[in-house]
Amino acid sequence: MSDPQVGFVTQASSSRAEEVGEIGVGMLGYAFMGKAHSNAYRTLEYMTWPPPLRPVLVAIAGRNEAAVGEAARRYGFASHFTDWRELVADDRVALFDNAGPNNLHAEPTIAAARNGKHVLCEKPLGRTGAESHDIWQSAAGAGVKHMCAFNYRFVPAVRLVREMLEAGELGDIYHFRGRYLQEWGNIDADLWRFDASAAGSGALGDLGAHVIDLARFLVGEISDVSALTATFRPGRTVDDGFEAAVSFECGAIGTIEATRFAPGRKNALSFEINGSRGSVAFDLERLNELQVSRGTDGFATRLVTEAHDPFLEWWWPHGHIIGWEHTFVHEIYHLLRAIATGGAVRPYGADFEDGYRAAEVCDAILRSSESGRREAVTYR
Amino acid sequence: MSDPQVGFVTQASSSRAEEVGEIGVGMLGYAFMGKAHSNAYRTLEYMTWPPPLRPVLVAIAGRNEAAVGEAARRYGFASHFTDWRELVADDRVALFDNAGPNNLHAEPTIAAARNGKHVLCEKPLGRTGAESHDIWQSAAGAGVKHMCAFNYRFVPAVRLVREMLEAGELGDIYHFRGRYLQEWGNIDADLWRFDASAAGSGALGDLGAHVIDLARFLVGEISDVSALTATFRPGRTVDDGFEAAVSFECGAIGTIEATRFAPGRKNALSFEINGSRGSVAFDLERLNELQVSRGTDGFATRLVTEAHDPFLEWWWPHGHIIGWEHTFVHEIYHLLRAIATGGAVRPYGADFEDGYRAAEVCDAILRSSESGRREAVTYR
Amino acid sequence: MSDPQVGFVTQASSSRAEEVGEIGVGMLGYAFMGKAHSNAYRTLEYMTWPPPLRPVLVAIAGRNEAAVGEAARRYGFASHFTDWRELVADDRVALFDNAGPNNLHAEPTIAAARNGKHVLCEKPLGRTGAESHDIWQSAAGAGVKHMCAFNYRFVPAVRLVREMLEAGELGDIYHFRGRYLQEWGNIDADLWRFDASAAGSGALGDLGAHVIDLARFLVGEISDVSALTATFRPGRTVDDGFEAAVSFECGAIGTIEATRFAPGRKNALSFEINGSRGSVAFDLERLNELQVSRGTDGFATRLVTEAHDPFLEWWWPHGHIIGWEHTFVHEIYHLLRAIATGGAVRPYGADFEDGYRAAEVCDAILRSSESGRREAVTYR
Amino acid sequence: MSDPQVGFVTQASSSRAEEVGEIGVGMLGYAFMGKAHSNAYRTLEYMTWPPPLRPVLVAIAGRNEAAVGEAARRYGFASHFTDWRELVADDRVALFDNAGPNNLHAEPTIAAARNGKHVLCEKPLGRTGAESHDIWQSAAGAGVKHMCAFNYRFVPAVRLVREMLEAGELGDIYHFRGRYLQEWGNIDADLWRFDASAAGSGALGDLGAHVIDLARFLVGEISDVSALTATFRPGRTVDDGFEAAVSFECGAIGTIEATRFAPGRKNALSFEINGSRGSVAFDLERLNELQVSRGTDGFATRLVTEAHDPFLEWWWPHGHIIGWEHTFVHEIYHLLRAIATGGAVRPYGADFEDGYRAAEVCDAILRSSESGRREAVTYR
Repeated sequence: MSDPQVGFVTQASSSRAEEVGEIGVGMLGYAFMGKAHSNAYRTLEYMTWPPPLRPVLVAIAGRNEAAVGEAARRYGFASHFTDWRELVADDRVALFDNAGPNNLHAEPTIAAARNGKHVLCEKPLGRTGAESHDIWQSAAGAGVKHMCAFNYRFVPAVRLVREMLEAGELGDIYHFRGRYLQEWGNIDADLWRFDASAAGSGALGDLGAHVIDLARFLVGEISDVSALTATFRPGRTVDDGFEAAVSFECGAIGTIEATRFAPGRKNALSFEINGSRGSVAFDLERLNELQVSRGTDGFATRLVTEAHDPFLEWWWPHGHIIGWEHTFVHEIYHLLRAIATGGAVRPYGADFEDGYRAAEVCDAILRSSESGRREAVTYR
Repeated sequence: MSDPQVGFVTQASSSRAEEVGEIGVGMLGYAFMGKAHSNAYRTLEYMTWPPPLRPVLVAIAGRNEAAVGEAARRYGFASHFTDWRELVADDRVALFDNAGPNNLHAEPTIAAARNGKHVLCEKPLGRTGAESHDIWQSAAGAGVKHMCAFNYRFVPAVRLVREMLEAGELGDIYHFRGRYLQEWGNIDADLWRFDASAAGSGALGDLGAHVIDLARFLVGEISDVSALTATFRPGRTVDDGFEAAVSFECGAIGTIEATRFAPGRKNALSFEINGSRGSVAFDLERLNELQVSRGTDGFATRLVTEAHDPFLEWWWPHGHIIGWEHTFVHEIYHLLRAIATGGAVRPYGADFEDGYRAAEVCDAILRSSESGRREAVTYR
Repeated sequence: MSDPQVGFVTQASSSRAEEVGEIGVGMLGYAFMGKAHSNAYRTLEYMTWPPPLRPVLVAIAGRNEAAVGEAARRYGFASHFTDWRELVADDRVALFDNAGPNNLHAEPTIAAARNGKHVLCEKPLGRTGAESHDIWQSAAGAGVKHMCAFNYRFVPAVRLVREMLEAGELGDIYHFRGRYLQEWGNIDADLWRFDASAAGSGALGDLGAHVIDLARFLVGEISDVSALTATFRPGRTVDDGFEAAVSFECGAIGTIEATRFAPGRKNALSFEINGSRGSVAFDLERLNELQVSRGTDGFATRLVTEAHDPFLEWWWPHGHIIGWEHTFVHEIYHLLRAIATGGAVRPYGADFEDGYRAAEVCDAILRSSESGRREAVTYR
Repeated sequence: MSDPQVGFVTQASSSRAEEVGEIGVGMLGYAFMGKAHSNAYRTLEYMTWPPPLRPVLVAIAGRNEAAVGEAARRYGFASHFTDWRELVADDRVALFDNAGPNNLHAEPTIAAARNGKHVLCEKPLGRTGAESHDIWQSAAGAGVKHMCAFNYRFVPAVRLVREMLEAGELGDIYHFRGRYLQEWGNIDADLWRFDASAAGSGALGDLGAHVIDLARFLVGEISDVSALTATFRPGRTVDDGFEAAVSFECGAIGTIEATRFAPGRKNALSFEINGSRGSVAFDLERLNELQVSRGTDGFATRLVTEAHDPFLEWWWPHGHIIGWEHTFVHEIYHLLRAIATGGAVRPYGADFEDGYRAAEVCDAILRSSESGRREAVTYR
C-alpha cells in the first residue's frame, strides 16, 4: 500500500475494538444507491475489523412516508423523515450521505456541509461543472470531509492497477480506452434520467462520469476532448450515448465512450491501458479479474483475490470472489478512516474536487459535441 | 421457481415485516466458515426482506477464550463459550450451526438435535458414510430441521441449471464432468486436513464432496464408481487428489475429480453437462456466469444477474455481480423459511440425507481405489 | 449468399473442371504480402474446385536479383525480373498483382491498368486521397477489373456479419467501435514504415485503413471524424497511433483507433457493432469466432466453421479452424470469378473506389488532428 | 528445438533448393483425410523452403472411378487406380500414404511396406491392438520409415508443451485431463463409424485415440485404466462415449474421455496438465493458443505465433494464426525429412509403435469397461 496514512490497518497493529468510536449517519434516499450504502455501513462494522468508526444509523429521509418508514425498518435506521431538511438539521448526524437523485445533490449536500456534517454524495456530483463547483466549494469552505461516491476506485483490480502504475510497472502510458456500455436505453418509458433538467445529461453523466473518473484516477488529467453525442430516441433531452477522443496531460491519447444502446452489455465498464512496459485490461462484468500483459506474453487472467491484493484481507481465501456491492464497503471504510484519523480522502478516494473535475470533463464533451471543435478541459 | 413451498416470497405478497418472528442461533466455530455463516445471518435480515425469521445471535463457541470472545464482539453474538456443550444446552438457541472442523461434526450436532434444536452442519457431514448416517438418523429421529451446508446449490447459476433440467431444457442427459481444482496442496505444513483421523479424507471429502453433491443435485443418483486416489506428498494419510469414472442411474456417464495440486487453479469448481437438447458449463471462479449451448450455436456466456434469475430479486440490477458469500445468505434463508413454515429443506437445499449420500459416494471411491474394481454405491 | 452473381458456385452446379480457363499472373514483391498472395494462387487452384480460372504464375518482379530469383523458384513463377516495367509489359500477364511497398503502388499499378491488365493492389491503395484517386481513375478508365486487397472482408466471420446486417438481423445500427492494436512499434529501428514520404502515414494507413474499410463495408459511409494522432518516438514523421470519434451517414456513431504501442496485442483487429436487435463482436486473433448477442442473452461464442458459413464449403468439417492466409484465397477467388464472369468486385470485395474512399477518411483524420475540428469526409 | 536431428533447418543454413531430391507419393483415399494430406504435399513444397524432398504426386486410389479420377485432377495426381494393389505395386511410388477407412489400414499398408515403400497411415493404426501390432511389425521388419498420422503432435502449442515438459518447466507432473468432445453423434444415420466390424470402436478409436496419443506424447506411458463406455443410441455396435480414470508410469493420475454427444462442442480436443511448477491448458477449437500458468498468477493466454515458436518460422508474423490443416504440413515435412536424412520419426512424430501402443490402451479401456476392473495396459 503506497500511502500509509490512508492504507489499511492490519489486525495485529490495530487499536483495540473496544476503543472504536461511533459516528451518526443520516441518509437521503432509499432506492438502489440507498440500499447499497446501507448495506455497506452494516457490513463494514464487522468485516473491516475493527472498523475505524462504528456507524450508527440515525435517520433516513425520503418523500414517500410509507416507503421511507419501511426502509428505516429494513436497514435499521432509528428514525425517518419525509423532509431532508430535518435530516440535515439533526444533531445526531455527523455524516450526511446523499444517495438521492441528481437534482437533489446540490442543495441538501451544501446545507449539510454548512451545518458541519461530513458529506458523502453520489455521482455525478452536480448536473454541471458550475453546480459541482458550488458543492465542492461549500464543503471545502466548511472544513468537513467530503467524498464523491466513485465507487469503482474501490474495486480491488482497479486499485491494483493504480498501485502498478504508481510503481511504474507499466512504464510510460500511451493509451487509455474506456467504455461503459449498457443495453436498457431502447425503451418507451419516460424516466427522469431522460430529462436534462433532472439528470443534467444522459449516458454521459450516468455512465461516462465513471469512466472519466477512472481515467483521471489512473492516467491523470485530461487536457482536451473531441467528442460526439447522439440521442437515438426522439423526445429525450439527454444523450443516449457519446464518443470522445481524448488527450491526457501526460502525453497519452485515448477514447472515452458510453451508451445505453448496446444489446448484450449489461454493465460493461471496461478499460485498457497500454504503457511502454505492459498493458492491463479490466471489465466490470468480471470485476474479480484483471488482464495483465508484461511485454510479449499475451494477457494473463489474474484473479484479484489473493490475501495481499487490495481490500482482500477483509474477505475470503483466494479464489472466493467478491460482489459488486463490496466496493461501497471499501469506499465508506476509507471515508470513515479519514474522518477518524483526520487523514485524506484523496488520492485513493474521490473527493468533491474529483467530482467537480469529472463534471468539467463532461461539460467539455458537451461543448465539443456542439461546437465541432476540440475543446480544452478548463477549471474555474 | 418450480417449488412454491420453498420458493421465494415476493415483496408484494409477503407478510408484514413487523410480524416476523425471531430465532436464536448458536454457532460452533469462528474461523473461515464461522465468518461466512455469521455474515449470512447479519445480511439476510435486511437483504431478504422481510426475512422468514429474524436471527438473534445468541452465542458462539470455540476452544480459545480470547479468540472466541473477539469473534463474539465482531459478529455480534451476545455471549461465548469455550465448551460446545454449554452452547448445545443453551435454551435460547433454537438453531445450532456447526461450522467447526470435520472431527467436531458428529458429537455436537447429534447432541444439539437430541436437545430439539434445528441443525445446520458444514460439509462433509461426517468423516465416513457410517458417521454421516449416525448424524442423519439422530436428526431425523429428533424431528428437527437439518441442513448440510452444500452452499453451491445456492449459486444462482447452479440453481438455474437445476430449473433448466427440471423443465427438460437439456433433454436426456448423457454426460456430467465435474472437477474441483485448487493449487495450495504442495506445501510443507502439517495441517489437520492432511490427517485421516481428523479429516476423514483429503481432496475427496473437502472438494470432491461438493462435486458429488452437485452431480446428485443436477443429474441424480450415482450408481457406481471406478476410481483412483493419489497422495503426492509423503507422510500424509489422506488423498491429495482423485479421479473417478462414474455411472448415473439415469444412464449418463461422466467423471468426478478433485485435487489440491493444480497450479493456477484457485477455486476451480467446474462442471459440464451434455444432454440431447443442449449443454451447460459452469466455473465457480466466474460464479455469476453460465455457459449455455442450445443445439449448434456454440456456448453463450449468460450473466446470471437478471431480476428473474434465482435469488437475484434480493440483490442488484442486472450486470451487478454478487460474491461467493452470498450463497450462504441464500442457503440460510432457505433453512429459516423451512423452519418458519414447516416446509422442506429438500430438494433445493441439501439435508443430512444428502450429506450422508455424498459420504457413501466418497466411501465407494475409496473402496474402488483400494480394490481396483468398479464399486456400486450402496446405502445402509 | 445474398448476391448470386458474385456468390459461390456449388460443386454440383459448377461448370466442368476441364473447361476452366487460365490466367497469367505477374506479381510485384516477394516479401510478406508476396508470400501470402502466392500461397493463395497455388491453393485456390484445388481448394475452390473447380476454380473460376486457373492461375499461371508467369513472372515475379523485385529489385534484388538473387532474392527475386529464389522467390520465383520457391513459389513457382516461370520467370523473374528486377524491373517492374518488364512485368507490366509482359504479354503473358493478364492480372498484375501489386504486393510491393506503399510508394510502389501508384506508378506500376497505373501502368499495368493502362496496358489492359486486371489489377490487384495491396492496401493502402495510395499514400493519400489524391494518389489513391489517380490509381482508381486510371484503372476505371482502362476498363479492367481492379481490387484493393482489404482481405479482412474475406474472413468468414466478417462476411457473416455483413450478411446478418443485410438481412436486418441487428436492426438499426447505433454504434461501431473498431480498433487495430499491435505492439511492435516501440523499437529503435529506422524503417520505411516510420517515414511519411515512403509510407504516407503510420498506424493510420497501415492498420487504421483496415478498420475504416470494415466500418464502411459493414455500417456504411463515414460522414465526419474528430481525431487525434500521436507520435511517441521522436524522429518519426508518421503517427504511432490515432484516435477518432466518428459519425456514420446512417446515424450511428463510434470510434476508430489504431496503434503500434499496445503491449500484449499481437494483431488485435477487433470491432463491436450494436444495433436495435442485437450486437456482434469480433477479434482477428480469434478469427474463426464471432461473438453474437441477440437481445438479453449475453454473447454467444459462435465458431464460424459450419458448412453453410461463408467460404467454409471449401475447407473442412465444422470445428476445424482455418488460418489467416485463407482470407487471401477467398479474396483472389472472388477477383478471378469477377474476371471470368464479367461480374462485380463490389460490394463483397473492395475495389479501387473503396481503396480511394478509405484514403479520404484517413486524410480527414489527419486534417482533424491538425485543425482541431470535426472534419467532414469529402470526395473529389 | 531440442532434437537437432529432427529439428528444423534454418533457411540460412539449408542446403540449396536446387539440390532437393524428389519422392513419389501414392495415396489411398480421397475423402476428408485424402484432401488434408494432398493439401499438405502441395503446400510444404514452397512453405517449408527448401523442402527436405519434393513430393511428386504419382497416383491416387479409390473404388469409385469417377470420383477418384476427379480427385486426381483436383489435387494433381498423375494417375489414378480403382484397386489399391496397383498403387502398392507401382514402382514410381516411394511413399505410400494410407488415408482410407479403418478397415483398409492393415492389408494395403502391410503390402506397401513389404514392397519396400515408406508408409504413412491414418489413425487409428489398426482396429485392435493385435491388428495394429501386425502392421507395426510388418513395417519394422521391412526396414521402411513408418508414421501414424497423429497430427495433433504437430500443433505448435502441443509441440511447445512437449518442449516445456522436456525442459522441466512444469516440474513433476501430477495430473493429465484430456477430452475430445464432439456433438454430431445423436443422429439417425447408419454410418460405418457406428459398426464395430468396420470401425473397431466408436468415439474411443476415432477421438479417444488422439487423446491417448497426446497423453503418451506429453506425460508418458499409461500403466492402467478404470473405464466405462456407453452406447446411447440403440442398434450401434460401438461406443458413443467413454470415461476413463488413468494412472501414468510417472506417478501422475488423470482422466481420458471422448464423446460424440456433447452439443455445442464442435471439435473440442482439450487437455490440462498440472505439475509442481505450473500448468498448461489447450483447446483445439483455439489451436493457436496455449493457456500457461506459472505458480500463482492465473493462466496467461499465449498466442503461439511467435517466430521462435515451433513451426512458425515457416508461416507469418506473430498474431497471424494458422489453420487446422497446417498440422499435416508439419507432420509430413517431418516424415520427409526423416526419409531424406535417415533420421528418426520418433519421438516428435508418432510411428507405428505409437499407433500400436495407443491401440493397446484402447483395448484396455474396452476390457475394463467389460470386466469392471482396473486393467493394466500390456504390450505383446
